[in-house]
Amino acid sequence: MISQLVQKIQKTKAPICVGLDPMLSYIPSHIVQNAFKEFGETLEGAAEAVWQFNKEIVDSTYDLIPSVKPQIAMYEQFGIEGLKIYARTVEYCKKKGLLVIGDVKRGDIGSTSSAYAVGHLGKVKVGSNVCSGFDTDFITVNPYLGTDGVKPFVDVCREEDRGLFVLVKTSNPSSGEFQDRLIDGRPLYELVAEKVVEWGADCMDGTYSNVGAVVGATYPEMSKILRKLMPHTYFLVPGYGAQGGTAKDLANCFNEDGLGAVVNSSRGIIAAYKQEKYAKFGPEHFAEASRQAVMDMIADINSVL
Amino acid sequence: MISQLVQKIQKTKAPICVGLDPMLSYIPSHIVQNAFKEFGETLEGAAEAVWQFNKEIVDSTYDLIPSVKPQIAMYEQFGIEGLKIYARTVEYCKKKGLLVIGDVKRGDIGSTSSAYAVGHLGKVKVGSNVCSGFDTDFITVNPYLGTDGVKPFVDVCREEDRGLFVLVKTSNPSSGEFQDRLIDGRPLYELVAEKVVEWGADCMDGTYSNVGAVVGATYPEMSKILRKLMPHTYFLVPGYGAQGGTAKDLANCFNEDGLGAVVNSSRGIIAAYKQEKYAKFGPEHFAEASRQAVMDMIADINSVL
Repeated sequence: MISQLVQKIQKTKAPICVGLDPMLSYIPSHIVQNAFKEFGETLEGAAEAVWQFNKEIVDSTYDLIPSVKPQIAMYEQFGIEGLKIYARTVEYCKKKGLLVIGDVKRGDIGSTSSAYAVGHLGKVKVGSNVCSGFDTDFITVNPYLGTDGVKPFVDVCREEDRGLFVLVKTSNPSSGEFQDRLIDGRPLYELVAEKVVEWGADCMDGTYSNVGAVVGATYPEMSKILRKLMPHTYFLVPGYGAQGGTAKDLANCFNEDGLGAVVNSSRGIIAAYKQEKYAKFGPEHFAEASRQAVMDMIADINSVL
Repeated sequence: MISQLVQKIQKTKAPICVGLDPMLSYIPSHIVQNAFKEFGETLEGAAEAVWQFNKEIVDSTYDLIPSVKPQIAMYEQFGIEGLKIYARTVEYCKKKGLLVIGDVKRGDIGSTSSAYAVGHLGKVKVGSNVCSGFDTDFITVNPYLGTDGVKPFVDVCREEDRGLFVLVKTSNPSSGEFQDRLIDGRPLYELVAEKVVEWGADCMDGTYSNVGAVVGATYPEMSKILRKLMPHTYFLVPGYGAQGGTAKDLANCFNEDGLGAVVNSSRGIIAAYKQEKYAKFGPEHFAEASRQAVMDMIADINSVL
């Protein structure tokens, strides 16, 4: 699976993913109002607005990018109706040739992680059939429960040729509270990184492993160390743009061959029309603003590689 | 919210929750076959089997217990169809007067945790309406991202009178891999425990805080220390029964007043009919076996309090 992502990144020259994390406040009011007209101010109405918004953004950016990263929480907040749109978005993006990284941050004890793994990456057995719940190519996973919480995801990745990104060093301001604490003189995130390497060792797919790592753009000194610790681990890098990470901050996440990282931007792309820089597009042409923002992001990142 | 749990525990004399974590392999074949007859060997068929199974177990145990804990992964593995049954199970249990602990182990950066929080515990704004996605009383939360990942859940608990159980020391074999590592001479789980106390301090509801902790039954020496560190924190205790924790191991999780912990059993209750001890009930009367297992569990735990 990771080799497919690498190929798509090489083809598009765009080591990025677009974060499909639609808050209702990001969605232009003409879309929201149309959805409410049809379904009322209900969960279904909200979900329809999200779907129409996503579809336009995907339609106007898919030829430029290798991958998208829907954040499932933004769908889950609208209950079943929201999750239907998550599933529909995943399916639509795959049809458009995009790889889909489900940002689900799941993780539990063994048998429970197995259920999440087959639900999001694999196939679940029902009688003599195999069925798919949410059919994403990659998901994000939380390591707090240790090896037996992560291994079931790794096993499904090996069997089904799918991929993971395990949280190592997250982009948020308080990520250091636990992740940076020193254990035998080294921060916890380094120990997690070493485990990620171990988990990924028998899950190689070309130069890189199908077991990747989440490494925030907001901590460039740490990503430098992590890049060295995990030479064959792909990084999913949140925190660029709206969260404060710059292209220069990102450079450390890449290997010398220009590979090794896929940088996410959510708000900066999907709500681009709200920025002064893209205001000329106006809410009616929000998807064109997103396209321009994607092109600018690609140029920005390539300027430091 | 935690005061409601305490009251129900005092009324039932049962400091337990029944883990509604149905694997298809737990469900008696007459239920599975009926569901497949109606819906085929599909996600819908699997979900229907889960629903019929849950309903019988709840019907035959609800008068004995204060709470249930559905594990969302077991539903999520069946995609949208499974999650519909999760929502239906939550609603049904609440109608039966049970408190529902959604075992979702969510956790993300701030704005994303907010979305999870309103989706599972609060109400989401849609236009001028407020709607509920998954309307549980408590959920479990993962602390790896630190304060800004947990605070949005705490805020919703304060606003809506709901509750959390934050993962502190989990019951699985490899939980120690990161959680037990020493930081300034103390294990990580103690630092997490101190944060849980801090997060819960302005969220008190009677003697206890609405911000609780997950503390596994399988590590009794650690729960002894955690009990002292967190005197006003309710513990959700997994690991009893099938995972190996005994009633004696649990005693440390309780305060001297016999309160302070709610012990979960999943397999040991819902698949009781598969144990030799309850084999006499047979698969047809699986729910009666679950009722007997609940009574035995209550007696077992009360014997050490």
